[in-house]
Amino acid sequence: MTSPQFLSDTARVDEAAIQALPGSRKIYVEGSRADIRVPFREISLSPTRTSGENEENPPLLVYDTSGPYTDPEVKVDLRKGLTELRRRWIDARDDTEFLDGPTSEYGQRRANDPMLAQLRFELTRTPRRGKKGRNVTQLHYARQGIVTPEMEFIAIRENQRRQALGSDEVERILAQQHPGEGIGAHLPNEITAAFVREEVAAGRAIIPCNINHPETEPMIIGRNFLVKINGNLGNSAVSSSIEDEVDKMTWGIRWGADTIMDLSTGANIHETREWIIRNAPVPIGTVPIYQALEKVGGVAENLTWEIFRDTLIEQAEQGVDYFTIHAGVLLRYVPLTAERVTGIVSRGGSIMAKWCLYHHEESFLYTHFEDICEICKRYDVAFSLGDGLRPGSVADANDAAQFAELETLGELTKIAWKHDVQVMIEGPGHVPMQLIKENMDKQLECCDEAPFYTLGPLVTDIAPGYDHITSGIGAAMIGWYGCAMLCYVTPKEHLGLPNKDDVKTGIITYKIAAHAADLAKGHPAAQRRDNALSKARFEFRWEDQFNLGLDPDTARAYHDETLPKDSAKVAHFCSMCGPKFCSMKISHEVRDHVFKDRLPQGGDGAKDPRETEKARHNGMREQAEKFRAQGSNLYREV
Amino acid sequence: MTSPQFLSDTARVDEAAIQALPGSRKIYVEGSRADIRVPFREISLSPTRTSGENEENPPLLVYDTSGPYTDPEVKVDLRKGLTELRRRWIDARDDTEFLDGPTSEYGQRRANDPMLAQLRFELTRTPRRGKKGRNVTQLHYARQGIVTPEMEFIAIRENQRRQALGSDEVERILAQQHPGEGIGAHLPNEITAAFVREEVAAGRAIIPCNINHPETEPMIIGRNFLVKINGNLGNSAVSSSIEDEVDKMTWGIRWGADTIMDLSTGANIHETREWIIRNAPVPIGTVPIYQALEKVGGVAENLTWEIFRDTLIEQAEQGVDYFTIHAGVLLRYVPLTAERVTGIVSRGGSIMAKWCLYHHEESFLYTHFEDICEICKRYDVAFSLGDGLRPGSVADANDAAQFAELETLGELTKIAWKHDVQVMIEGPGHVPMQLIKENMDKQLECCDEAPFYTLGPLVTDIAPGYDHITSGIGAAMIGWYGCAMLCYVTPKEHLGLPNKDDVKTGIITYKIAAHAADLAKGHPAAQRRDNALSKARFEFRWEDQFNLGLDPDTARAYHDETLPKDSAKVAHFCSMCGPKFCSMKISHEVRDHVFKDRLPQGGDGAKDPRETEKARHNGMREQAEKFRAQGSNLYREV
Repeated sequence: MTSPQFLSDTARVDEAAIQALPGSRKIYVEGSRADIRVPFREISLSPTRTSGENEENPPLLVYDTSGPYTDPEVKVDLRKGLTELRRRWIDARDDTEFLDGPTSEYGQRRANDPMLAQLRFELTRTPRRGKKGRNVTQLHYARQGIVTPEMEFIAIRENQRRQALGSDEVERILAQQHPGEGIGAHLPNEITAAFVREEVAAGRAIIPCNINHPETEPMIIGRNFLVKINGNLGNSAVSSSIEDEVDKMTWGIRWGADTIMDLSTGANIHETREWIIRNAPVPIGTVPIYQALEKVGGVAENLTWEIFRDTLIEQAEQGVDYFTIHAGVLLRYVPLTAERVTGIVSRGGSIMAKWCLYHHEESFLYTHFEDICEICKRYDVAFSLGDGLRPGSVADANDAAQFAELETLGELTKIAWKHDVQVMIEGPGHVPMQLIKENMDKQLECCDEAPFYTLGPLVTDIAPGYDHITSGIGAAMIGWYGCAMLCYVTPKEHLGLPNKDDVKTGIITYKIAAHAADLAKGHPAAQRRDNALSKARFEFRWEDQFNLGLDPDTARAYHDETLPKDSAKVAHFCSMCGPKFCSMKISHEVRDHVFKDRLPQGGDGAKDPRETEKARHNGMREQAEKFRAQGSNLYREV
Repeated sequence: MTSPQFLSDTARVDEAAIQALPGSRKIYVEGSRADIRVPFREISLSPTRTSGENEENPPLLVYDTSGPYTDPEVKVDLRKGLTELRRRWIDARDDTEFLDGPTSEYGQRRANDPMLAQLRFELTRTPRRGKKGRNVTQLHYARQGIVTPEMEFIAIRENQRRQALGSDEVERILAQQHPGEGIGAHLPNEITAAFVREEVAAGRAIIPCNINHPETEPMIIGRNFLVKINGNLGNSAVSSSIEDEVDKMTWGIRWGADTIMDLSTGANIHETREWIIRNAPVPIGTVPIYQALEKVGGVAENLTWEIFRDTLIEQAEQGVDYFTIHAGVLLRYVPLTAERVTGIVSRGGSIMAKWCLYHHEESFLYTHFEDICEICKRYDVAFSLGDGLRPGSVADANDAAQFAELETLGELTKIAWKHDVQVMIEGPGHVPMQLIKENMDKQLECCDEAPFYTLGPLVTDIAPGYDHITSGIGAAMIGWYGCAMLCYVTPKEHLGLPNKDDVKTGIITYKIAAHAADLAKGHPAAQRRDNALSKARFEFRWEDQFNLGLDPDTARAYHDETLPKDSAKVAHFCSMCGPKFCSMKISHEVRDHVFKDRLPQGGDGAKDPRETEKARHNGMREQAEKFRAQGSNLYREV
């Protein structure tokens, strides 16, 4: 735990978050104007050594969520926050204005509390808001046919430089990967800014980018783009400090978190959030009801629309990019949960259920939904419509309560769209495998393809301590079926607050799930990384194999455990099989021979193994002698 | 590393493998005769504490692979091996005879080598073999309509005491779980010995139980039974000792390995295997070609049928329960791998490919396949037909080489069945999600529903260090689609030899995958454990939650990290949310109210949320007042 005065004096970036990833460098691809600079990580590869000359392996470009932290040219000072990447784009639209200061009552109170001086992030600018009558959402622009710099940035980012390759090269890449099974997804070979705009305009994708979070590098969430992942962090009344949470954020984006949710429910929620947002190059989501509940001393029934409204404005003016709003928990749905095995497991859902029952009214989230839209459109805060009645056990999956709420979320989606407010939908929860697709299909149907954003789902309840895995299975599947963003689950789920190791494990697990989904959908660039890594593996380029992986550090450490010597990094075997049993080594001994002297071919035309009997009498001895004469090397020697 | 003389003097059971699992005790369910005693682990649960009286929670019975190690009544001495559980059953069939000693040349040589005295397991009995002309396989018995004690044992084991519950209770259990989607599996509500016999007779299931491994507790592998998992171990030329491997075996079965494969390729393969088999209550599989290759100094082309045959007999007489035989690698298939990204990655496959090319002949595994059947039927060794051409990268998945070999495995299956030899089929490998089902469907078609036994599949190549997860995703899916046994993958896959921690992580990951598949198929007892754990979770019975999980130790340790106090184990909240934000706690506050005063119901008939508007004017205030009068406790207080 950090003492309160620590931060504004001495807060500094976690050293672990800024080390260059091995073999990697930060590069930027410029767009149509100099201030559109899209970051990537370029992994350089060593050449393939053959007995003759070396063959170069081109470097691999990967999507990079780590922001300026991994740019050696940039020195981030947490106390100053990140550069306002989007400031000029927002300025240029000329539809926003700077306020004199926070307009929320709570925001003002915190800004003026002298006790918080040492804890407070020193923000030197005032919040921005859409001018009176103006709608500043990306959805609003998209529907007017405007391609924003954010959209162009995203097109370049998603495209991973395919546009520069030429159509022949793109064809070649596509020929080297399996056709996907899109199940309704439509992934174009080239992502253009126009396509981004169309998808946003259709409501099939969202760009979470509050005008008060100009530090973000724009990203998109939609089924026709790369599958994204979210990492949660946040303190609780029991544990954690602001500094720990900022460290978890920089650590999470290093390993691939596309967005971060700050779910703090403990002390100094407002200040914690400010530190995180000012230093986050990724969109930040929150569940505003958590803070509202804190404001009424934790007594759910004392919540009011006025307190909640003030909280929304407070957070919107800090720069929160998406709000989880549990507006689908209707009074009459609550009894549907009474005979569940695990009742209501969403924190927001249970708070609202209690409020509804206590007052015997529909919640203010529902009755004031249009008022919330009015707030969101002036800051461009996206909705993440919360699944307050999501199942907390496989027994409760796909039940009447869950699906009733989903239908209400569908209605609310249309209301949000009426206001040109961006919206995605949250989903389960715990769902056994055979019921996952029903969730996805029902969401697409109820919510007209608004992006789905799911927690897991966990496919079984019986493995506390391993719920990153129980949920990673479900996440990969629902990502394939059409889910746009996967909310990570750490090994501590159900047991405790995640530490940095847990955050990393959760992120890597979900990067696996998201990438597996991209492969299954047939994303046109997805398999390049698999192919590059497998080629490196087959050619015993150990360093390249580590560096192309999602977690080079762990891969290297595992390899070093049994074969720590540097010479082992170029060895043509590993500790699993040793030199004599290495299938890859033997495989190489085959290749040259096969390429030189085609053997009788197998395949469709030759299903009867006895056919080779004939071939045996036909030059067999000669073939064998050639093979021996070559030194019995079967593949090309590497 | 252990010095060679260590074992026979002082070998002792790993203490970690014999501790009772928390809250658990070993019980036995007796069959039709006193010597059929089927082991289970019974997890006792604490009562549900309500404000009124306590409600008992019945103990949960779980399948138990850990053998006598976890029976406090049994003291295992590794130097003596386990009790011969099946000896009398084998004797009673009167179709086998004891030999004077090993009949393999190599077995004799090792038995007589004085240098090995300190390393050798002191086996006091001689090997057994089917009498001349007798076929001693479970398949042979099954086809003659004989229900063996092994089959009855398995029926009780698979049934998990459902037969004792009565049909009403079974109906009740089924009503508490989701219908499965069997995709061709047919899981009866009660597993009878007759059903076991039918499945074995049809070739849809196998019972690996060599007559020389009477220490096994019988188990079955087939799509209409619980999905099983295999754990691999074994030394290599680079690393590990006999003692380490025995420890990995007892550790692996503690966490749920249904079978163990000894893949040793290093020193003293014969002696290592003997120690493992004599102390293993689960079937042991091997890849005999590994040892055969050692015998010819690692030079693949020097392998001969005579050396291989002697190895098969050597291992069959030690008690190996199933042999991986890569007999489907045909000469003409090898060129199909030449342009692959990762060539041939199966060790056995690459060895045979090299042999075939060198000699330009079909391998002796293929040409002598019927001779191998003759050996297997006299010891009841099951085939695990190896997938020597399985893909080693997603790029190579489902290619011509892989599927050509699978068709040959289908032919070999029919030959094995002609000899009444039990057979299962090995499968991939690396396969992206959208191509997994094609693998399963093609295997069922080519091999007439012989059980499929797959490695993963890994759904992406990009996560070395996390391949238990990349493969756990694919394993869960293929288990659902019909795969009978899942071969585990540890975090060290592709990088190094697994240590004990890796073994445990691999096993738990695969228990998750197998159980998720059981749930998805609708196995009639699968969801009981999920329901019991979720109920415990909802009622804040922390100890029960830990104990019902696959790994109580890890769950408890994670919980203790943030809330180490014993009092936290009965706390109605945890460190994740703290007391105020605990959704489960709030949920409990709802239940009583809902049960007492039914609110306007949702569901199909009431889709328009505006309908509640009417209800608001109808006694709403009255309802709210009742709720407040109850103390605003919404669910039953626990």
